[in-house]
Amino acid sequence: MSDQRVVRPTPISGFPEWTPQVRAVEQRWLDHIRAGFESFGFASVETPSVENLDVLMAKGETSQEVYTLHRLQADAEDDSDAKLGLHFDLTVPFARYVAQHFNELTFPFKRYQMQRVWRGERPQEGRFREFTQCDIDVINVDSVPLHFDAELPRIVHRVLAPLDIPAWTLSLNNRKVLQGFYEGLGIEEPIAVIRAVDKLHKVGDEGVRGILLSEGLSGEQADACLRLARIKSTGTDVADRVRELGVTSDLLEEGLQELTFVLEDLADVPGVVADLSIARGLDYYTGTVYEASFDDDPGYGSICAGGRYEDLAGQFIRRKLPGVGISIGLTRIFAKLVAEGRIEEGPKCPTDVLVVVPGAERRADALRTGEALRARGFDTEVFHSTAKVGKQIQYASKKGIPFVWFPPFDDEGSHEVKDMAAGEQGPADPATWSPGA
Amino acid sequence: MSDQRVVRPTPISGFPEWTPQVRAVEQRWLDHIRAGFESFGFASVETPSVENLDVLMAKGETSQEVYTLHRLQADAEDDSDAKLGLHFDLTVPFARYVAQHFNELTFPFKRYQMQRVWRGERPQEGRFREFTQCDIDVINVDSVPLHFDAELPRIVHRVLAPLDIPAWTLSLNNRKVLQGFYEGLGIEEPIAVIRAVDKLHKVGDEGVRGILLSEGLSGEQADACLRLARIKSTGTDVADRVRELGVTSDLLEEGLQELTFVLEDLADVPGVVADLSIARGLDYYTGTVYEASFDDDPGYGSICAGGRYEDLAGQFIRRKLPGVGISIGLTRIFAKLVAEGRIEEGPKCPTDVLVVVPGAERRADALRTGEALRARGFDTEVFHSTAKVGKQIQYASKKGIPFVWFPPFDDEGSHEVKDMAAGEQGPADPATWSPGA
Repeated sequence: MSDQRVVRPTPISGFPEWTPQVRAVEQRWLDHIRAGFESFGFASVETPSVENLDVLMAKGETSQEVYTLHRLQADAEDDSDAKLGLHFDLTVPFARYVAQHFNELTFPFKRYQMQRVWRGERPQEGRFREFTQCDIDVINVDSVPLHFDAELPRIVHRVLAPLDIPAWTLSLNNRKVLQGFYEGLGIEEPIAVIRAVDKLHKVGDEGVRGILLSEGLSGEQADACLRLARIKSTGTDVADRVRELGVTSDLLEEGLQELTFVLEDLADVPGVVADLSIARGLDYYTGTVYEASFDDDPGYGSICAGGRYEDLAGQFIRRKLPGVGISIGLTRIFAKLVAEGRIEEGPKCPTDVLVVVPGAERRADALRTGEALRARGFDTEVFHSTAKVGKQIQYASKKGIPFVWFPPFDDEGSHEVKDMAAGEQGPADPATWSPGA
Repeated sequence: MSDQRVVRPTPISGFPEWTPQVRAVEQRWLDHIRAGFESFGFASVETPSVENLDVLMAKGETSQEVYTLHRLQADAEDDSDAKLGLHFDLTVPFARYVAQHFNELTFPFKRYQMQRVWRGERPQEGRFREFTQCDIDVINVDSVPLHFDAELPRIVHRVLAPLDIPAWTLSLNNRKVLQGFYEGLGIEEPIAVIRAVDKLHKVGDEGVRGILLSEGLSGEQADACLRLARIKSTGTDVADRVRELGVTSDLLEEGLQELTFVLEDLADVPGVVADLSIARGLDYYTGTVYEASFDDDPGYGSICAGGRYEDLAGQFIRRKLPGVGISIGLTRIFAKLVAEGRIEEGPKCPTDVLVVVPGAERRADALRTGEALRARGFDTEVFHSTAKVGKQIQYASKKGIPFVWFPPFDDEGSHEVKDMAAGEQGPADPATWSPGA
C-alpha cells in the first residue's frame, strides 16, 4: 500500500451520510411514510433527477439554487448536457410529469414521490445540498376540490404522529387572503408585499415595515399589512378577525372562505393553526399555503411545506391543471434528531440467525439449513468460512445477531440454537423453530 | 393560460421515467430485491449522489463518463462545488464509505446499496445516463474469504429467479488466471492484453489478434491468448483445460484454484459458466470477475457485473481493505422488459376501498369509516367531494379501485360494500369486513 497516494476521505458539507445503524432507522421511516401515503390511495411516481433547465426555470426565482450538469470530458461542440439541471424540489418535476403523461393518467391524479433533491445553497444547520423530500400532490383537470387542501395536512399528521418527533405545528394561510387584503388597501404590487411579509420571522416588524415603505406603501398601509400578519388563531374565528380590520375585496372574501373551510375540516387534527404571516417564498402558490416547524425550535426552518398552485402544470400544456401538495422535509427532520441523539439506533445488520459451519465437509448442509430458515422468513447468514466455532459465535456477538444456529456436527448429531441475549441453548428444528417458542 | 409561454415537455434521452402502473411494478421489484439482500444478512447503506472528483478519479479510466456539478449562478471566486461529481457506480463510493467510517463498522462488513448512478454516455439501447443499480459487497480487513465470491452470485440468482426475467447466464472468470497466463507467456504488459481480450465480443478473434500484435505480442503469444479466451465450461474441468495449453505460472495456478473453488461451490446454481474471455473493463478488479447477460440477447450488455478488488478502499486509508461485490443492473433489465411489453402492469393506484360521501353533512362519518378501514390495513380513499354518488362510483371504476364502500346515508342506515369486479353489493361492517368474506 505504501507506494500509493492515499486520498483521505472527508465528509462533503451539506451531503448527509449515515452509519448502517442510523440508515436502518431512516429506511424504517421511509417505509412507514410510504405505507401511510399509500393507505390514503396515493400512487408512487419517480421522476429523473434532472430536468431541462427551461422546465426548472419556467417560474424563475430559484435560479441560484440549481446545480447544472457537465460532462467532465465533453467535446467543445457537444452541448447535449448543457441544459440539464438537478431538480430542486419535486413539485415542478411532477407538474411537468403530469403535462407530459397527460393522456396516460386518470384524474384527479394523486401521487406520492419520495426522492432526493439538490440545492446549491451554502450549507448551514438544517440546510442540506442533497436531501430527501416526501411529497403528496393532487393534480386535476380544470379544478381541484378544496377538500384536498384539508386532506393533505391530515395525512401528514397521521404519518408523522407515530414517528415520535418533537412537537410541531402546521401553520396555514391562503395567498388569496394576503393578495386580496393588499388589493383592498389599494396596493398595486401585492407580490412584493408578500415577499416582504415572508421575511417577518427574520427581520421583525420594524424590518418589514422599512421594506414596505421603501416599496412605496404609506405608513398606514404598512401598518395594516403588519396587523394582518399578526393574526394567528387555532379557532375558526380567523375570518372575523381579518374582517375587523375593515379592509374588503372579493379576492379577500374568497380567500377567507377557503381558509375557514380548511380550518373547519381540520378541527379534529391537533397542532394546526391559521397564521396570516405565512406566505411561502416560492411564487407558484396561489391559494392555501402550509408551513410546519418544531415548536421548541421554530428558527430551524420548515419541516413540511406546500400549498395550492393553479398553473404550475398549465405552463407545459394548453390545459388547466391546478394542484395542491405538501412535502415532508424528511432529511431536515431526521438529521436534527440524529444530531441531538434522539434516534434509537437500529441493528448493525438485519440478520436474525447465524448458521455455524462446523467444517468444510459440512458447509453444504449448513447452506441448506440457511435456505430452510430463509424460506420461513428469517434473515439468515451462513458463516463465511470454516473458522473455529468460537470465532463464529464471536462474529454473531460483535454484529448483534440474536440467534446462533448449530447444524449437526456429524451424521448422528441434531440441530441446536442459542439465544445470544438469554445465553440459553437447546435443540431446534429448522422447519418449525420460532424465536418466541 | 393563453398569455403564457408554453414549454412543451419532452423526455430527456437516457433518463427513464415510468407511468404509475409501471412504477408500481418497479417498486415491487425493488422491495423484493431488498428483502432478498436482507435475507442474507446484508445491511443497507446509502451514500451521497456526489463524491469529490479525486475520489471518483483515484482509479482513472472512467473520467469521460463523470458528470460534474456547477451552481447555475456561482460567484466567480466560489469554487466550493467545482470538485463534485455524480457517482458512476456504487463500488467506489462504498470503498470510500468504509475507509471514512472504518472505526464505526464491524467487519467483515456486508452491505447492500440500491441507488441511482449517472454516466455521461451517449444514450443507446440498454444504456442510460441515469439508472438504478442494486449492489451487494463485502469488505473486510486484510482478507476476504473466497466463500463470499461464491455466495454473491448465489444471492443474485435467488433474488432474480422469482422476477420471471428472460433466461440469463452468469459468466465467471478470475483476473489472476488471465494475468498469470499472460505472464507465463512472457508478456510484459498483461493489463493491455486484458483490455484487448475484453473487446472480443465486439471485434472478434481477428480484431483482438490485430490489437495484440500491435501491442508487440508474437503471433504465437496472440494465438495462445485467444485459445485461453475460447475456453468456456459449465463443468469444473476448466482448470484442466487451461493447464492443457501448457502455460504455467504461480499466479495462474492460484487463479485456477480460486476459480475452481467458486465453480464447485456454485455447482447447484443453474446458469453459471466459466468463460475465460470475461475480463471486465474497470481496472480495479484483481481476482474473481462476474458478468451476466440475457441468453437470447447477449449483445444487450451485462445485466449483472462485479468482482473482487484488493485495494479499492485501501487507497483511502492505510489499511488493507479488500472486497468483493456484484451489482444488479436493475434499470437495464427492467427497461428492456417494459420496452418489450413483458411487464404485467400494476394498478393505477394502491387503493383497496373507496368510501362514498353521501353528502356534506355525512362527510365526517365517511372520514371515520375511512380511518377504521385504514386501521385494519386497507388502503382507503374517502371521495374528495360531495359529487353525485354515480360519479363517485365512476371514479372508482376509472381508477380500478376494487371495492366501493357506502356508509349509512342517514342515521337509520347501515354500511354496504360493492365488489366492483363481481358487481355484487351487500351489508358490511368496517370493523370486521374482509374482501374474501
